[in-house]
Amino acid sequence: MKPIATMRRTMRFQNGRIVVKDEAVVTEYPLTIKINGKEWTTLVCSPENLEELTLGFLASEGVIKKIEDIDELWIQENEGYAHVKTKRINPFYEKLQNKRYINSCCGGSRQSFVFAHDALTSKRINKFQVKLSIEKVFHLMAKMEEAAIVFQQTGGVHNAALCDQNGIILTRMDIGRHNALDKIYGNCMKNKLEIRDKILVFSGRVSSEILIKVAKIGCEIILSKSAPTELALELAEQLGITTIGFIRGQSLNVYTFPERVLISNSIDEENFFPNKKSI
Amino acid sequence: MKPIATMRRTMRFQNGRIVVKDEAVVTEYPLTIKINGKEWTTLVCSPENLEELTLGFLASEGVIKKIEDIDELWIQENEGYAHVKTKRINPFYEKLQNKRYINSCCGGSRQSFVFAHDALTSKRINKFQVKLSIEKVFHLMAKMEEAAIVFQQTGGVHNAALCDQNGIILTRMDIGRHNALDKIYGNCMKNKLEIRDKILVFSGRVSSEILIKVAKIGCEIILSKSAPTELALELAEQLGITTIGFIRGQSLNVYTFPERVLISNSIDEENFFPNKKSI
Repeated sequence: MKPIATMRRTMRFQNGRIVVKDEAVVTEYPLTIKINGKEWTTLVCSPENLEELTLGFLASEGVIKKIEDIDELWIQENEGYAHVKTKRINPFYEKLQNKRYINSCCGGSRQSFVFAHDALTSKRINKFQVKLSIEKVFHLMAKMEEAAIVFQQTGGVHNAALCDQNGIILTRMDIGRHNALDKIYGNCMKNKLEIRDKILVFSGRVSSEILIKVAKIGCEIILSKSAPTELALELAEQLGITTIGFIRGQSLNVYTFPERVLISNSIDEENFFPNKKSI
Repeated sequence: MKPIATMRRTMRFQNGRIVVKDEAVVTEYPLTIKINGKEWTTLVCSPENLEELTLGFLASEGVIKKIEDIDELWIQENEGYAHVKTKRINPFYEKLQNKRYINSCCGGSRQSFVFAHDALTSKRINKFQVKLSIEKVFHLMAKMEEAAIVFQQTGGVHNAALCDQNGIILTRMDIGRHNALDKIYGNCMKNKLEIRDKILVFSGRVSSEILIKVAKIGCEIILSKSAPTELALELAEQLGITTIGFIRGQSLNVYTFPERVLISNSIDEENFFPNKKSI
């Protein structure tokens, strides 16, 4: 098996001095997914948890809806293939793949573009089952970062963690930020984890694609170290997801559904978000 | 025209206090490229310099080789289309797109995977025309960061700059790190800029895809704030490119071809890179 990181001789300049060091550098691994014997796509990823990645990616793309849609799945590690047998290729999928879809998403009132297969597989979350204190938000981000060993060594990967109120349940990393979330998704499907009471913690930026993935996995809350995009926040409003970004040191931004954030003094939501939908 | 960033009402928690602020958030814009009337692909990008983006992307993907290969190019901004007319679609392109290509790249001795159309369009750089002092490396990175206004406001974009020994010539930003480089590439093609004496400065991680883009643009040196991958460094060795990463504060790592870095005491290269090719 290819390692996820490797050592390379590097000339390091630091505070006026040159040292020669062996530095850890992440690897890239091409995984070609074959569906029913036909080459479908190639992902470039970190070479671990490849079965989870394949499962999560297929579900994210709308090819499968549940683990039972897979008849067989095996990884040829040295050759870089994931072989998938399924009877359940969504008939909409092949037609709609990569076609633009300009419409309102999920019954919301705003016009957003989303890729067609995404709109078909995301559901609005109407419950407010999970609530987090600000302290817990900082705590979960700190725990995710503590667990991100490969990132600490290489600076070259993204990290995602599935958590509940008590802490981290599962962490996954990958050179691709989408892949890290797909690995989480695949693991949840495989182990039939109950998702609704869980929280996702993520190192990367929250674009519309990432937000849609969070919705598909089924989490009510996404915590990120980085920035969101406007479209991600519009989708979060339509899909019922709390988005918290820029969680760094002792500060953070709550962009959508602050109702899930417990703070000492109760928030007058009308006052904080007087024109939630306007920009 | 859609703005590249927009203000959103946000609940910010900072050092124990809650404030409600309007925070700048980047937008996402879908640009669908049509070639000879046929829908080809949709890029999600920051909505500026769309003509450059289209040009650079087409060249990166190997669809065109030079600006003269384009008969017409016009952007329908409100509708989100880039219309391209060309007689010169590379006949290899349609067949090879996204097919894996396990082979040695560019005559090098190591086995690397690259996507087929990349291998067809990258050339090895054999000259050592550009040399930079360590101080200049820090200076160029600082200048790029100073110019990255949208990043400073939103934290949501990547930045690229084309420089020479005297400073920045051109900066471009985008929510996608590939797009930021493609915009630079498109501008260079359009204005027929001489590239060989230039340096690329980049905010993002240097993966194999980014490294191949640097080779296609034709720069000898890539400076990055972030980490490289192993495959990017292997390609850099094969393609003759100096890769400097983790340029932060007063430290940096030189990963490949330190011959282009001028330092006060001359380097015994044999001593620094005794087994350059081994891992």
